[in-house]
Amino acid sequence: MKKTDFYDVVVVGAGPAGLQAAIHASRKKVSVLVLGKEHKSSLFRAHVENMVSLFNATGKVMLETGRRQAKNFGSEFMDEDILKITADDGRFELETEGGNRLACKTLVLATGTARNKLRVKGEKELVGKGVSYCVDCDGNFYRGEEVTVVGSESAAADGALTLAEIAGKVHLICDDLKVSEALLAKLDNSHVVLHRGAKVKEISGKEEVNAIVLDDGTILSTSGVFIELGAKGLMELATSLGVALDDTMRFIRADKDQLTSVSGIFAAGDICGPPWQVAKAVGEGCVAGINAADYAKKLHPTL
Amino acid sequence: MKKTDFYDVVVVGAGPAGLQAAIHASRKKVSVLVLGKEHKSSLFRAHVENMVSLFNATGKVMLETGRRQAKNFGSEFMDEDILKITADDGRFELETEGGNRLACKTLVLATGTARNKLRVKGEKELVGKGVSYCVDCDGNFYRGEEVTVVGSESAAADGALTLAEIAGKVHLICDDLKVSEALLAKLDNSHVVLHRGAKVKEISGKEEVNAIVLDDGTILSTSGVFIELGAKGLMELATSLGVALDDTMRFIRADKDQLTSVSGIFAAGDICGPPWQVAKAVGEGCVAGINAADYAKKLHPTL
Repeated sequence: MKKTDFYDVVVVGAGPAGLQAAIHASRKKVSVLVLGKEHKSSLFRAHVENMVSLFNATGKVMLETGRRQAKNFGSEFMDEDILKITADDGRFELETEGGNRLACKTLVLATGTARNKLRVKGEKELVGKGVSYCVDCDGNFYRGEEVTVVGSESAAADGALTLAEIAGKVHLICDDLKVSEALLAKLDNSHVVLHRGAKVKEISGKEEVNAIVLDDGTILSTSGVFIELGAKGLMELATSLGVALDDTMRFIRADKDQLTSVSGIFAAGDICGPPWQVAKAVGEGCVAGINAADYAKKLHPTL
Repeated sequence: MKKTDFYDVVVVGAGPAGLQAAIHASRKKVSVLVLGKEHKSSLFRAHVENMVSLFNATGKVMLETGRRQAKNFGSEFMDEDILKITADDGRFELETEGGNRLACKTLVLATGTARNKLRVKGEKELVGKGVSYCVDCDGNFYRGEEVTVVGSESAAADGALTLAEIAGKVHLICDDLKVSEALLAKLDNSHVVLHRGAKVKEISGKEEVNAIVLDDGTILSTSGVFIELGAKGLMELATSLGVALDDTMRFIRADKDQLTSVSGIFAAGDICGPPWQVAKAVGEGCVAGINAADYAKKLHPTL
């Protein structure tokens, strides 16, 4: 063990929600450790233009600045994932991938969600350079341009319709469309071009996306590819502690205080569900950090 | 009328919650008007150091930047207060102080709260220069310094104890202390200096606070004065429309979607209660703006 092995607050996740939680908890004079890897945040490769009073910030710079702020207020950082969490008599015990054992009074879960990947050539390389997992976040960058949405469920259909109001031409690459009649009718009345039964083989481009290649060899010119396969939460860690999920069974249920169903465990950011916005993550992180610090202060000091 | 008299979304309040709501609503391609005066935001005279990825920002610059962003996305602004709001068959009609009449499909209430003032000489002049209404926000600026808290209820007592861990010497100017035995015992065991029965006559200082003068002529050297008299919300506007308050009867009750008890009316920021943090206001504004825009889109277009 290199550092103190006991903390008032451990924040799991080093994205905007986790950093904001760490900042606010640290300011309340409790000991705070942030676990997680900066580059795992969905913000890392993003470009942010809709966060109030930040103009055209890159996600990477935002994360670095936030980390520096949290450190200034006293937060410690350990760039490791967690393998195991157990609850033991009002305290939580953690084991990291590096074999470190830690304990804490309260946890803030802020690991975000892993967006479902398409897993085709070019996808990973072009994330943030034309490949996006969020129409609501990035759609506005493609005003008047030719864009493609990939997915067969309501998120994809709805995303395509949203883009139809912004972009020039919109392709929707889908298997059998599993959407409501109403949504289907809207699609039919829109200028969205459906490619039913098509599959994406490759996303191409060097510095940025310029085309998408289908498995029948068709090449569609496109400057944006929106992969809307739905989001799957990293919930194993939480549910093993008895943390309840929300009605969709995909996200952690947290109340207005960001408290989960388990005493001492708070959650913030994308792990609590949409909207997928930095501002929302930061707001929840603020509330979670303050409440986690207050909770830790109230616990018996010998814990 | 100088401008369109009908909007999808009217945001009342031009602070961080209102601006963030306007940004997110505008991005959803609905028409948005923001009503309110920048300088009325409690952020206007503040200095922000606990907002993730903003280092040492002044509130004034944050508000100006946010307004520019919202305008870029299409929001309109009218620097006027509202005199009257009425609900009429699913739409809201507004009358501004300048005599403008507007109508909208949905409202976002984000006017913040008016913190209770002490109303003594020097208070107004030195806000942001040593006079603060929020220990949690500004306490950290006074590490090792001599500070004063004014107030007789739990907010003041708790604020003094928080400052006792940060500042050098802490004075608490109070009438009869209306706090729990436990809090009283903590005060007695702390190094907070109680001035029971004292009243503040004046806060003095030129560029910044340097002393506080009591009505018996005592002069206490101090670099920070925290006025913790509780907060009183500007609720008249909302309650006249049937918007329900929360259990404290001081703030608007909003759910996780920032929807109030009245269909079509959302609320965000300090008007929904503490914590008094920009990050929390911005998070709520984001959610309110997105949901207000979605609500407006779903309403019958002829409204």
